[in-house]
Amino acid sequence: MNHFNISEIGRFAKEVVKEAGALLVKLRKEPMVLEEKHDHSDLVTFADKEIESFLVKKILSTYPQHGIVGEEGIFDQGDTYYQTQWVIDPIDGTTNFIHNFPFYGISVGVVHKGVGMIGVVYNPVTDELFYAEKDNGAFVNDVRLHLDQPITLKESLISTAMFWENPNTKNTMHPSVIQIYKETRGLRMFGGAAISLCEVAKGTLNAYIVPALSTWDYAAGIIILKEAGGTITRLNGQPVSLEYGGSLLASHPSIHRDLLGILSKH
Amino acid sequence: MNHFNISEIGRFAKEVVKEAGALLVKLRKEPMVLEEKHDHSDLVTFADKEIESFLVKKILSTYPQHGIVGEEGIFDQGDTYYQTQWVIDPIDGTTNFIHNFPFYGISVGVVHKGVGMIGVVYNPVTDELFYAEKDNGAFVNDVRLHLDQPITLKESLISTAMFWENPNTKNTMHPSVIQIYKETRGLRMFGGAAISLCEVAKGTLNAYIVPALSTWDYAAGIIILKEAGGTITRLNGQPVSLEYGGSLLASHPSIHRDLLGILSKH
Repeated sequence: MNHFNISEIGRFAKEVVKEAGALLVKLRKEPMVLEEKHDHSDLVTFADKEIESFLVKKILSTYPQHGIVGEEGIFDQGDTYYQTQWVIDPIDGTTNFIHNFPFYGISVGVVHKGVGMIGVVYNPVTDELFYAEKDNGAFVNDVRLHLDQPITLKESLISTAMFWENPNTKNTMHPSVIQIYKETRGLRMFGGAAISLCEVAKGTLNAYIVPALSTWDYAAGIIILKEAGGTITRLNGQPVSLEYGGSLLASHPSIHRDLLGILSKH
Repeated sequence: MNHFNISEIGRFAKEVVKEAGALLVKLRKEPMVLEEKHDHSDLVTFADKEIESFLVKKILSTYPQHGIVGEEGIFDQGDTYYQTQWVIDPIDGTTNFIHNFPFYGISVGVVHKGVGMIGVVYNPVTDELFYAEKDNGAFVNDVRLHLDQPITLKESLISTAMFWENPNTKNTMHPSVIQIYKETRGLRMFGGAAISLCEVAKGTLNAYIVPALSTWDYAAGIIILKEAGGTITRLNGQPVSLEYGGSLLASHPSIHRDLLGILSKH
């Protein structure tokens, strides 16, 4: 029960995520039924639920003793404590998925005794499978990812989401975002936390900065980015938890301190 | 001299842009030399100049009587008036190109007696060739693009660039952008005007809103979007010129009036 066979579970995780990706491509072609969660910009589709159900069923039939935390809450966690937890976002970037804008994917992390062990993120449109095991490196389609080359802030391209001086009124962008815009090569906003973290791991984008996420948004992505050599904290520099959500400053290691500096000053 | 054979010139334009795309893929693999134009976020690479030189040479060898306006200014326009003008951005989305972020492309428009006749935009990474002839429709890889399905603002995904209440100080985002964020499904910023216009033509994004562009940024893209059924004006509702640059509100026809309304009120 206590043993965690990382490479066996990892192999299985890659397989089921690829299968779920094929299902997602199929569902994308069907007429789409949308539900609003909190407001008109927070959406869930039939596909989100289908993919999560598919993954839950597959995982439990192989690992009935594991627990699952998913965005759609298909698995009833109850009061049970699970040593091994799968943390699932069935569609990372649901809005992009709805719009057929090819930045979305399936995100699956595996956490053992509170430690992130395995991360899998799959973009079925570009057919990129990102994979990492703790202490064994990060890969995209079996090509090793590593952020070896140092960079400066001035040379950096930053991914972010809208964020606000006052999140209740949403009337003014947070001044730190504007300062980051001025000191870097530019900002990109394209939705999809897991995919953004993988782009940082690839080095195409150099940081991903967001004020609020759930654990399923980043569980897989931060394992991948960490194994690629990236640095990940909360916006205030504190370590990131896999138990509860929050902010994220996930970056190339060369610019993490500079970004923290800007965030603390503005 | 006076005759403009749209389908012959269009065929030729598609061919040379595809060839230039293959060259661009090759140049992407070589070590990159960057130059700063105005500041650290406005860059030009050796590849920008190479691609423009390639296109200028090809165009003039087939159409020696045509003029060419390009971002890198390779062709010396002089005082001559050209009935037919090619308007070229050798790399639309140079920063994305540098970062290997797959939203960039080659943009070539052909203008005859001041009227946009042909638009070609090619993304060599996704191998998408967007093409339109005036009054003959818009296509991506020979599939017809048409924005038939009406949409509402609430269902729209909007592409923009950072824009400012005061462009000199760049201290506060323009309030209209924040209002647009609130009334739509969300904002995306990913650089690359021509590619953004083509995404609007595809319907993956529903509007592209920017305060300042040059003619080579949009000459091809607006022909493509217009032929796909889109509506294009300046931010104040005025018609867009192909002679001098300016702002752009390029959208699905269903939401153009609503967006103009927000822009005029904020």
